[in-house]
Amino acid sequence: MKALPESIQRLIKEFNKLPGIGHKTSERFVYHLLRLPREEIDSMGYALQEVRDKIKRCTICSTYTEEDTCTICSDPQRDQTLICVVAEPRDVIALEKTGEFRGLYHVLGGVIDHANGVGPAQLRIDELVTRTESGGVSEVIVATNPDMEGETTALYIAQQLKKTGVSVTRIARGLPIGANIEFADEVTLGNALSGRREM
Amino acid sequence: MKALPESIQRLIKEFNKLPGIGHKTSERFVYHLLRLPREEIDSMGYALQEVRDKIKRCTICSTYTEEDTCTICSDPQRDQTLICVVAEPRDVIALEKTGEFRGLYHVLGGVIDHANGVGPAQLRIDELVTRTESGGVSEVIVATNPDMEGETTALYIAQQLKKTGVSVTRIARGLPIGANIEFADEVTLGNALSGRREM
Repeated sequence: MKALPESIQRLIKEFNKLPGIGHKTSERFVYHLLRLPREEIDSMGYALQEVRDKIKRCTICSTYTEEDTCTICSDPQRDQTLICVVAEPRDVIALEKTGEFRGLYHVLGGVIDHANGVGPAQLRIDELVTRTESGGVSEVIVATNPDMEGETTALYIAQQLKKTGVSVTRIARGLPIGANIEFADEVTLGNALSGRREM
Repeated sequence: MKALPESIQRLIKEFNKLPGIGHKTSERFVYHLLRLPREEIDSMGYALQEVRDKIKRCTICSTYTEEDTCTICSDPQRDQTLICVVAEPRDVIALEKTGEFRGLYHVLGGVIDHANGVGPAQLRIDELVTRTESGGVSEVIVATNPDMEGETTALYIAQQLKKTGVSVTRIARGLPIGANIEFADEVTLGNALSGRREM
């Protein structure tokens, strides 16, 4: 498109790389930005650069942080005997939003997914074992997704931690809040039944 | 969210400003970028800065350009007697994609929209009149949207150009390609009937 200046074409291509953003939407983003004061574009550019320069992985749990250790790992108020294992940093944020968990986290950096060439060696499982063996941990909660890859990863972790003698638990499965029994799939309904609790 | 580093929160807020992008999607964008090599973030930041620094408005038609006059206005091959009036630079791109138009453009910078406080004075209508009066123009095609604001604007422009003696035309309305007569709204169908042509 000769009529479209190169710098605009380039920015459209960049936004186009974002997940779920097609060419049309990307175009809309660029035209939107062009109608704003230049400071708004600066502000987005600055935010990008800050994330690029400041964000690193926590040396203990591997979640995103601007310090060497994240705010959770360096908080003495958190229960140091509990470690919740998750696939990605975004899972840490989701669990923190519940306000239900006061222990520490361990980010694997993915899940075992042989179809996509991800084996245990690519994940931070050895680090988890070392962390658990170093003492003071009483329970490891495995909070990977309740899908095939998540279950495989959970089982593998449970096996690896067996020798440490620590208690390994799995987050509960059942009906999500607001769900309708009539329309729930059989596996979820089966999980809800087998995981029933005394009232 | 104490667990979420400030720079990440800031970038989420920035993407959140894009049209149609909510907090969740914005979060997804940021986590996506964080999983890519740093060069990818640089590349987006650089593209933003380029657009910010290089893009200006064409001194003739007011579309986006990196030069003083855009590639269309400075192309001697284009038909200088034809001016197509559009609301925004994105409309120029849309019309250029058709490959049907070989004249020049004139970007108004919006449409008359009294409900949102946009009157003729805020648009580049005086510039259009001057441009037409300066001679050499035989036809002005008004290509604003076929909605109330677009029609109001088209009528106003036709009135303003009456004194110049130039021919003012309006883009055709009718059924879009692939449309279904059964489901077309009455106004569109009425326009299609009244705008019928000899075969």
